[in-house]
Amino acid sequence: MRLYNYFRSSASFRVRIALKYKGLPYDYARVHLLNDGGQQFAPSFRALNPDSLIPVLDDGGQVLTQSLAIIEYLEETRPEPPLLPREAGERAYVRSIALAIACEIHPLNNLRVLRYLVKTLGLSEEQKNIWYRHWVEQGLASLEARLVAEGRSGRYALGDAITIADVVIVPQIFNAQRMDCNLSAVPAVMRIFDHCMQLPAFVDAQPSRQPDAG
Amino acid sequence: MRLYNYFRSSASFRVRIALKYKGLPYDYARVHLLNDGGQQFAPSFRALNPDSLIPVLDDGGQVLTQSLAIIEYLEETRPEPPLLPREAGERAYVRSIALAIACEIHPLNNLRVLRYLVKTLGLSEEQKNIWYRHWVEQGLASLEARLVAEGRSGRYALGDAITIADVVIVPQIFNAQRMDCNLSAVPAVMRIFDHCMQLPAFVDAQPSRQPDAG
Repeated sequence: MRLYNYFRSSASFRVRIALKYKGLPYDYARVHLLNDGGQQFAPSFRALNPDSLIPVLDDGGQVLTQSLAIIEYLEETRPEPPLLPREAGERAYVRSIALAIACEIHPLNNLRVLRYLVKTLGLSEEQKNIWYRHWVEQGLASLEARLVAEGRSGRYALGDAITIADVVIVPQIFNAQRMDCNLSAVPAVMRIFDHCMQLPAFVDAQPSRQPDAG
Repeated sequence: MRLYNYFRSSASFRVRIALKYKGLPYDYARVHLLNDGGQQFAPSFRALNPDSLIPVLDDGGQVLTQSLAIIEYLEETRPEPPLLPREAGERAYVRSIALAIACEIHPLNNLRVLRYLVKTLGLSEEQKNIWYRHWVEQGLASLEARLVAEGRSGRYALGDAITIADVVIVPQIFNAQRMDCNLSAVPAVMRIFDHCMQLPAFVDAQPSRQPDAG
């Protein structure tokens, strides 16, 4: 398998965790989002993914896009160790946590959105950072409230087994820390984060350990 | 089952299509996003979903959030007729289309984001509408390019069977039309839309047919 990705991209980070957690080796194909005017816009990459978005996973010629679709594919084709529980209600629960981050927080802080805010709307760096922190802090506060209300967490988001929820939470916290978001209001989320970061799959997948980390 | 939703919410619309396509009856619980300062912020609703987001599906006391997680749950608990193909690569393909809309287009045009643009950043109505159309048109252009490049569409996004991709495409087109987006550049997407809108599940789930349509 070959993963087209960028060390700092949190969607890439999700897929790296899943691959490592399942013990699946892969080639690391670098797509630098800032160099060369953005390598994701190069014709060779656009031929792979017209969205100009990473990650892209090539599994023996099968080209897959969108991090959560890739992780579901890995779960279906390499089910052990699992990233989804067995029971439908629990599967829906961990998927909803993953989606709450992937659909409600992360898209607002994507590189192209931040660029639009600054270049097209003329926002200052300070306003851009306030925007960033606003959506991260609000989104994580909702997640915290849900985790506490549901009471289903153990070491991880659902009991003591790693799921797709944890795979998506951890990269979001890395982003939040890099942007100096206030995380003091989300202790339940941070407890999950700390437990995950004791596992080799999460540690090895983190941005600073990637070959393109600069 | 009981669906907490709002006629115009496209995430609600996705779940209504899935329920109707699978022939599953449900109670329609109204959550008006504009009345009473937003009924999604009422304590009674926040107890159900701290995210203050719709749709929420209550299936015999099992409370489910996030439209795509709800649809996957329905697929797992009521598999016929299916909304996912059988083969893993095809499942990844249709999920990636659903996610490309749910993660790249829709979150940027959410009510709360548009409010932030106007109320916090002081954008004009005109700037807000340009923002809206920008992300819809760019996102749909990417989808169009992908559909054409992959060549897997028939009447619908994947061949001639309805999948989760179609369930997510149709509500996005309704939003695009309501906001006067230019759809002339995406004929492959619109062909799928037109075919879907010949089916009762899609017709019956549309905003104007809901009890709270005003």
